Amino acid sequence: MTKQLFHILVFIVPIIALLPWSPESRRIPFLGKQSLVQKPPNNLVADNYTYEIRYYEQTLDHFSFDDLPNFSQRYLINTDHWAGPSRMGPIFLYCGNEGDIEWFALNSGFVWELAPRFGAMVIFPEHRYYGESMPYGSREEAYKNASTLAHLTAEQALADYAVLITDLKRNLSAQASPVILFGGSYGGMLAAWMRLKYPHIAIGALAASAPVLQFEDIVPLETFYNIVSNDFRRESTSCFDTIKKSWDVITSVGRKVDGLDQLTKTFHLCGKLKSTDDLYNWLDSAYSFLAMVDYPYPSEFLMPLPAYPIKEVCKAIDNSADGTNVLDRIFKGVSVYYNYTGTVDCFDLDDDPHGMSGWDWQACTEMVMPMSSDKNSSMFPEWDFNYTSYAEECLNEFGVTPRPTWITTEFGGHDYKSVLKTFGSNIIFSNGLLDPWSGGSVLANVSDSVVALVTEKGAHHLDLRAARADDPDWLVAQRASEVQLIKGWIDDYYTTKKAAFNM
Amino acid sequence: MTKQLFHILVFIVPIIALLPWSPESRRIPFLGKQSLVQKPPNNLVADNYTYEIRYYEQTLDHFSFDDLPNFSQRYLINTDHWAGPSRMGPIFLYCGNEGDIEWFALNSGFVWELAPRFGAMVIFPEHRYYGESMPYGSREEAYKNASTLAHLTAEQALADYAVLITDLKRNLSAQASPVILFGGSYGGMLAAWMRLKYPHIAIGALAASAPVLQFEDIVPLETFYNIVSNDFRRESTSCFDTIKKSWDVITSVGRKVDGLDQLTKTFHLCGKLKSTDDLYNWLDSAYSFLAMVDYPYPSEFLMPLPAYPIKEVCKAIDNSADGTNVLDRIFKGVSVYYNYTGTVDCFDLDDDPHGMSGWDWQACTEMVMPMSSDKNSSMFPEWDFNYTSYAEECLNEFGVTPRPTWITTEFGGHDYKSVLKTFGSNIIFSNGLLDPWSGGSVLANVSDSVVALVTEKGAHHLDLRAARADDPDWLVAQRASEVQLIKGWIDDYYTTKKAAFNM
Repeated sequence: MTKQLFHILVFIVPIIALLPWSPESRRIPFLGKQSLVQKPPNNLVADNYTYEIRYYEQTLDHFSFDDLPNFSQRYLINTDHWAGPSRMGPIFLYCGNEGDIEWFALNSGFVWELAPRFGAMVIFPEHRYYGESMPYGSREEAYKNASTLAHLTAEQALADYAVLITDLKRNLSAQASPVILFGGSYGGMLAAWMRLKYPHIAIGALAASAPVLQFEDIVPLETFYNIVSNDFRRESTSCFDTIKKSWDVITSVGRKVDGLDQLTKTFHLCGKLKSTDDLYNWLDSAYSFLAMVDYPYPSEFLMPLPAYPIKEVCKAIDNSADGTNVLDRIFKGVSVYYNYTGTVDCFDLDDDPHGMSGWDWQACTEMVMPMSSDKNSSMFPEWDFNYTSYAEECLNEFGVTPRPTWITTEFGGHDYKSVLKTFGSNIIFSNGLLDPWSGGSVLANVSDSVVALVTEKGAHHLDLRAARADDPDWLVAQRASEVQLIKGWIDDYYTTKKAAFNM
Repeated sequence: MTKQLFHILVFIVPIIALLPWSPESRRIPFLGKQSLVQKPPNNLVADNYTYEIRYYEQTLDHFSFDDLPNFSQRYLINTDHWAGPSRMGPIFLYCGNEGDIEWFALNSGFVWELAPRFGAMVIFPEHRYYGESMPYGSREEAYKNASTLAHLTAEQALADYAVLITDLKRNLSAQASPVILFGGSYGGMLAAWMRLKYPHIAIGALAASAPVLQFEDIVPLETFYNIVSNDFRRESTSCFDTIKKSWDVITSVGRKVDGLDQLTKTFHLCGKLKSTDDLYNWLDSAYSFLAMVDYPYPSEFLMPLPAYPIKEVCKAIDNSADGTNVLDRIFKGVSVYYNYTGTVDCFDLDDDPHGMSGWDWQACTEMVMPMSSDKNSSMFPEWDFNYTSYAEECLNEFGVTPRPTWITTEFGGHDYKSVLKTFGSNIIFSNGLLDPWSGGSVLANVSDSVVALVTEKGAHHLDLRAARADDPDWLVAQRASEVQLIKGWIDDYYTTKKAAFNM
């Protein structure tokens, strides 16, 4: 049986929307975790970050002049520590991702902690079509159809940030203040791209866990799932093997007369399982997300999780009593992810089946990040990325045809080493090698000023999170390098400016 | 009397569309010289350039995903001298301007002459909404209204070139072939901007007479008309004085009962002059264009003209019999421009009064290039750029509101020296100081590889024209420097590539 699927992966949020495993099925099943982005968990530590919420009347289409309504872009701003325009106080701009900007602000403590040390203003603009920054007045209107969603693109978002910061600086007479960009995941891609495309606006960028090379065939298509798989294998070979075995077990159970009922019971699902595809997706999502947030301390980024959660998942899988069958082991394992607090009675695989997610739109237009799963090296079922099916599904779901080569045409990617070496400067690509997205990022220094900071045990943009007493040394060291580099950019900028004044 | 006007200037073509001198008037008078771009003069020397004409199915909106029809983009291509993909033969790409691409190809002999020396392919893609490259199937449909014109922007045009060349290289397996950009005037701006925004696509750009700084207040608003004026003054102070005096004479004659009839007769107009504004525009257009094409040899770029035509115009103005009145002198002067062949019986000021010109649309959206005329230094009437009126006229004419700060937000411009120094590379800004557009360009070296090549006696992108036996030495030297620099870019590229292969 040929299994045809493709993955639309959201970085921060574990929405791993698989296309149907069976090609007959037409609907893209979404796991519906978007709600976690739209409504951050209440149990997030609110921390001490204070900011003012403002709104900017933003142009919907920067690159054309059709008569479209402006929209209200939300941004968070804090000027408490800003050295001001006369002292050219820096501006730290976080490039908002695919979600509610407050949630990213709360999870990017590094930016807030750094600001006072640099006398910097902090600004977190929200990405269009996410959070409150909805064109056409509401999420419902903005997500109505392909025409209303049309302007949800990375280039438009970058232009939003460029226009907003230029206007803000003008109003504050702070044209000379240097802007430093921050971003994690998709936000990190935006930060890197903005530094490349708008170097007159920002003097440097910290692009954390930014898979800017996860397009076309720049990196091997198996990279993502190989890293997820390796994260499990490094904890336990038997854990890896059990997971690898489980897919066929699910398939064969699912084929039985009562198979779907049996699976529903085994996995404590609230509603009856409709197809094994839904279960695959639910499990794939858990494993992939676990790899992203395999942090060295307990975290509540999306789910409350223990330190190094993959270790705990594998313990649950491996340490079940002898004779426990594969699916019961798997259930125990993913329960560490989906039910660490033990408060969930049953699991809902399909809580937002028809919700259009913004990232899914982006994945069906520009952000085509092809992925395959290798028979030998991956613990996931084997499959090959099939662009034709991908495009078909996008046409069915959104009425849109992807442009799979556009991102590299617009932002580069092929031959990036020589291009970035001669052209780019002042970009940090930070990555943790446990993060499956790290395989699509820049992992080696390109030049003196396009620098890769890689930690072996880090996961998805861990460095952007707030400092903690129990931060491991390698994380402290990574952040220190980042501070040093950013300080260098700002110092260089001031030196150049002062030289210009004295001329 | 306050005279309110603004100028929308087309580079190549002498369409200098002045807003009404009297604020009551609402219509933007166009001089209607667009036709010269749409239909190049028949008497152009067709030269020896041979090319194939091809069409590329192009995306109308690269930055959004609305369901819009593709359009057919014309491009000219010649591969006769191309060294081919295996030898990484270079690709010379001329960034098409605001007009028929064949006309630019025929007037850019330098590119054609250079190609065999470098084993280069030559490609001249046409700018969208000009020539035959019409969205919606025809010029009539494309120019119907603001909504159909919406996608006539510089960013979309650059994306067209990026997509086209990327696809072409892919089809030819020529991904490793270096691309060199060429462009004059607006095309030069596109070449410079493309090098900045798409450095992964092109390794260098020759931006001839590209006024990339003619935005907002980066250069003094009086620059353009001061240069035109100086071009006349350097030939003859009395010529300058006569022109400067003439405006008031026209105004006072125009106020007389038979004044417009009198002016109609004096200037040999075919139809009765409707307002003195139309006459001002006609004269302004002649003077400004003369400054642009004040070439050292006879040319037929748009009009058949003698060598150093301003000298001839001033001779005609100065050398009239004693007692010849101011307006008769002026008429003799501009006849050198409008009627050098002596075949014109009467002049039509208003041959395309309602035609929407593509450049006028661009000037009313992104390409807001503010200009004023200084009381003392200019031979034109005094006026100050008034953005409010400008925007009102654009709203009236096209139903569109300009975005006057967008170009610098998108492409930079303020503080360009430090930005280009640290960020840009491999750009030649070539200028002739007689060209009034030179004041809005880069006239001093910014770095080792962002270089200004300035000639004192050159005019509007003279260097891009075909070599001639009577080229002055300074022009030969300028072109030689350009060749040397381009050769350096290509050599560097090959060196880097070879080093990469040997790694």
